This record gives sequence, C-alpha cells and structure tokens, in this order.
Amino acid sequence: MNVGTISKPHERLAEMLTREMAAVNTLIQTRMASEHAPRIPEVTAHLVEAGGKRLRPMLTLAAAQLFGYSGDHHVKLAATVEFIHTATLLHDDVVDESGQRRGRPTANLLWDNKSSVLVGDYLFSRSFQLMVETGSLRVLDILANASATIAEGEVLQMTAATDLGTDERVYLQVVRGKTAALFSAATEVGGVIAGATDAQVRALYDYGDALGIAFQIADDLLDYQGDSKATGKNVGDDFRERKLTLPVIKAVAQATAEEHAFWERTIGRGRQEDCDLDHALSLMNKYGTLEATRADAFGWAAKAKSELETLPEHEIRTLLRDLADYVVSRLN
Amino acid sequence: MNVGTISKPHERLAEMLTREMAAVNTLIQTRMASEHAPRIPEVTAHLVEAGGKRLRPMLTLAAAQLFGYSGDHHVKLAATVEFIHTATLLHDDVVDESGQRRGRPTANLLWDNKSSVLVGDYLFSRSFQLMVETGSLRVLDILANASATIAEGEVLQMTAATDLGTDERVYLQVVRGKTAALFSAATEVGGVIAGATDAQVRALYDYGDALGIAFQIADDLLDYQGDSKATGKNVGDDFRERKLTLPVIKAVAQATAEEHAFWERTIGRGRQEDCDLDHALSLMNKYGTLEATRADAFGWAAKAKSELETLPEHEIRTLLRDLADYVVSRLN
Repeated sequence: MNVGTISKPHERLAEMLTREMAAVNTLIQTRMASEHAPRIPEVTAHLVEAGGKRLRPMLTLAAAQLFGYSGDHHVKLAATVEFIHTATLLHDDVVDESGQRRGRPTANLLWDNKSSVLVGDYLFSRSFQLMVETGSLRVLDILANASATIAEGEVLQMTAATDLGTDERVYLQVVRGKTAALFSAATEVGGVIAGATDAQVRALYDYGDALGIAFQIADDLLDYQGDSKATGKNVGDDFRERKLTLPVIKAVAQATAEEHAFWERTIGRGRQEDCDLDHALSLMNKYGTLEATRADAFGWAAKAKSELETLPEHEIRTLLRDLADYVVSRLN
Repeated sequence: MNVGTISKPHERLAEMLTREMAAVNTLIQTRMASEHAPRIPEVTAHLVEAGGKRLRPMLTLAAAQLFGYSGDHHVKLAATVEFIHTATLLHDDVVDESGQRRGRPTANLLWDNKSSVLVGDYLFSRSFQLMVETGSLRVLDILANASATIAEGEVLQMTAATDLGTDERVYLQVVRGKTAALFSAATEVGGVIAGATDAQVRALYDYGDALGIAFQIADDLLDYQGDSKATGKNVGDDFRERKLTLPVIKAVAQATAEEHAFWERTIGRGRQEDCDLDHALSLMNKYGTLEATRADAFGWAAKAKSELETLPEHEIRTLLRDLADYVVSRLN
C-alpha cells in the first residue's frame, strides 16, 4: 500500500468532479430555500456550510462518471443523497441529544428540537421531489428502500444500544442503517442512471455497502483509541453514552460473570463511575477486541475493493479503490 | 340542509367502502411491521388503533371509486396517505410537546421523543415505498409536493404562531400545510390513478383543499367555543399554547393600541394570567371574530361542494358533498 496514493482520495475525487460538485452545491442552495419559512435555510445552511466531506454525493457522481454518463440527473441524485444525509443528521442530533456536530454547536442547541425535527422533514421531502424529477422508478425504488433501512436501523440502534444481548449480527444491521444503506444507494443510483448492467449495479451496491460498513466500524473503533484532536470527539464518548459498539460487543461475548456484571452496570443500566472507562478499555485489551475490530474494518475495506474489479478500468475506479483504503487508514 | 343526510357521512362512506377499507387496514398492519425493530409496530399500533376517522385514506378510495376504478393501487395510495398522516402526528406531538392525542397519552409520553421522531421517519419511508409500487410518476410527484408543503407549513407554523404580524394569508399557508395539503393530495391521487381527466383531477384537488381548510378553521374555532367533552380538548388550549389562529388574527387586525399590547403580552411573550383567556374571548366577541371565522369555514365548505359539480353523478359524490357540510356542522 503506497501512502502517496491513499492520501485523501476524496479530495482528488472532488478535484476530478469539480464542475459536477459545484452544480450539486448550487442545486442544494436553491432547493433548501423556502419562500415562506426562512427558518429552513437558516438551519440547513448551518449544517451544509459546516462542510463535511460530501462523500455521499461524490459517490453518486463518481459512479455515474465511471460509466461515462453525460446527462444531468446524477447531479439531482447527488443532491438528493446529501439532503437525505442532512435530514438524518438533524434527526440524529435530537435523538442523541447532541451538542456538537462537525466541531460546531448542533442545530437543536442553536435553535431547538422542533426546528431540527421539522427542517429534517422538509429536507427529506425536498430530496423526494428531486428524485422524482429524474423520472426513474428504479431509482425511486432504491432510495425508498434505503430510506426504510435507514429509519429501521435508527430505531433498532435506539433499542439495541444498551441491550447487552446485542450481537454482531444486530450491530451490522444497525451499521447498515446508520451508514452503509446511504453509501450503497448513492453508488447504486449513480450506476443505474448511467445505464450500467445489472451485474455492475450490483457490484456498485456491494462496494458502497462494504465501504460504509468499513467506515462506520473505523469510526466506532476510533471512539476508543482515536486522537481526540483529529476526531473532534472525546475518547470513550460511546461508552459514556451507553452505545454498544463492536469493540464492546466482542468483549461482552467473552466476558466472565464478573465482567458481564460490569458491562451490565455501566452500559445496561448506565451507572458509571470515574474509573469505569479505564476498566472497560482494559477488558477490551484483555480480549484483543480493539485489534479484532480493526481487522474487521480492514476486511470490509478489502471486500469493497474486490467489488470494483468487475467495473470498467478508469481513473475513478482507482480513486474509489483508494477511498476504501483511506477510510481505514485512520486506524494506522 | 337536511340533518338526516348530513349525519356522519364519513360513516356512510366507510360502509360503502368496507371491503377497500379492510384491505387498507390489512396493508397498514403488514407494512408497519418491522422484523428487526419491534418498537416500530408498538408505537404505530398505539396510534393506528386509537382510530380516528380514517378520513384521508377514505378520500382516496372515494375519489378512485367515483371514476369506477377497478385496480388495487388505490388501496396502496390510501395506506400511503394514512402513513404520511400518522408520521406527521408523531412528529407534531414532539414539536408541540403534547401529552394527549385522540384521548390517549401520546407516543412521546408513553415511550420518548426519540421513538416518535424515528418511528415517524420509518412510517414516512414506508409510505414512500408504497407509492413507488404504484409505478405512477404523476402520483409520486403529487405526493412529493404535498410532503414538501406539509413540512414547510409546519416550520412556518412554528415561527409564525407567536408572531403578531401573522396575517390571514400566512394563516392559510399554515392551514394548507398542516391539513389541506394531505386532503387535496388524497383526493387528487385517487382521481389520477383512476384515469380522471385533467379538469376532473383539478376539481378533486380543489375539493380536498377547500374541505381541508374548512375542517381546520372549524377545529381552530372549536378550540374557543367547543364543548370540551365532544372535542376532547379544553377551551382555550390554543390561547394557552400561544397559537395564533384565525379568531385571534382577526381580533389583532382590529385591535386598539391597548388591546394590541394585551395580545403581545399573552401570545407574543406568553406572559399569561388567570383571567386572560376570558379577556381574549371578550375581545373576540367585541369584534365578532368568532362569527366571522365561522362564516369563513362555511364559505370554504361551500367552495368544496361547488367543486364537485363537474364530477360524475354518483352516490359517492353525494357523500363527499355531505362530508363538506359535516365538517362545519360541528359549528352549529
């Protein structure tokens, strides 16, 4: 793995897709406007302008470009995907009672929960209008299913997060909902709109799915061993918020009775004391679950790359390959 | 107006559409299920089983039937409309911090705000899947636009409710968002799916729009003069919750400086004392705004009825006519 080629592939993708990404941004600005309710663009701008890597819309543009698409529906779909993502973030912040997102205060803190709920709903319906404009029932079907998977995953996360019975299978469903479903829909609709074959569309779906899972597992791992300056989060936030993620799920699966009682008290019942995070980390180290989680993330990244093999040779394919390396390179 | 013919026309509609409504209910039961997240059907069942008149899905079935539709897409669309409605109620209860709905504790009280937000999102995506199954881009376009109008109206209501500058034009936009947009979409898609002409579809839209507006104005009026046993709400709830509705908007428009200061203190700043509701009612009586609001409601009901004149003669048309009388008959 050459470090040169894996440095920030999303930035190189953005560079290659400058013109299209500019069109996506213009469309987002236009469509988030509301003649009647100025609160809507205020809240949305706060989130949209905070940036983020715009990874999801880029995936849609990249997938369409990979098949030489020359229309403009990919721009609409990329904006659709970003609107769905933004709507999800707004609702997530209400659900998580978060105070920070992308290093800035969240909308529910700056305005209120109501604004976050309702503006999220507005963006979701705007995304729906945009996708209808493509006139593709197949695209609508994909995005409707992705939306249902996302919403179901969020509910599942809410109920499964503090339940010690949550196993790796349930965790994977949650991860598909919160991250992978939109990644895979983003790449899939790009291929569909560009007229890729069914096998190619399937490979694009599988690539997005594996990329999203690798991305989320890496995120969950970094919560326990990341550099808080780089991640913008404090080590152990998930533990304090009683979110069962992969490193803990693996430790719970191997726990002695005494250890199980510890997890039950701290995650299950949320009765935590000062030194509990240290003890949790020592248990994860005892069973090597941080290492095992890391291996899982790399495994999914490798799967993502292998899915690309059947797709046309193209500079974009190389960048998508590098992107899969990049999402787990944060773990090195 | 014969009281006999206007008694509960929705019940007679329900009787005429028994078979179709049963199919809608079965579809709702099937589609609100979630293999992975049992919280979803729990929350939804709480709301769906509480009943309500199922007015919106019935409007879709009725409109399709009026044009002799013989397929089964109208059942899907009726379930779609009910899912959108239920999703909106779940989010509304979070936004309004309500404790009661249809005489039962709200979902956000029984479970939590998180569940209401996320299950609402799930139902909205389920509705989206259902409408995609009809394969009609025109239907998708109508429902996407209705969703955007609903969400925009909700945001507008949030920001306009306590703003004394809110005039009747803004009020109407809010009412279209919170009620009329789904009524008009419900009747419109019924006609579209049944192959009605453009002029007929337009009349169905206008009927639903006017019916929804009449319905909501009547609701807002009953808040000030209803029988709390019949409405299930306390007189003056909107005043206490600082919601500017038509009777107050009309009074503010004619207020003296001193009266304006009263409205500014009680609604604008929410500083209310025990006898303020009585004083508010006396101001509404002084300017006859309750009577004027009542006249508006009847005006919209009359408009709804007149829209039906171009539609085919049919028992259903008679019932839709009676329904327009019925929604304002509560004001007699």
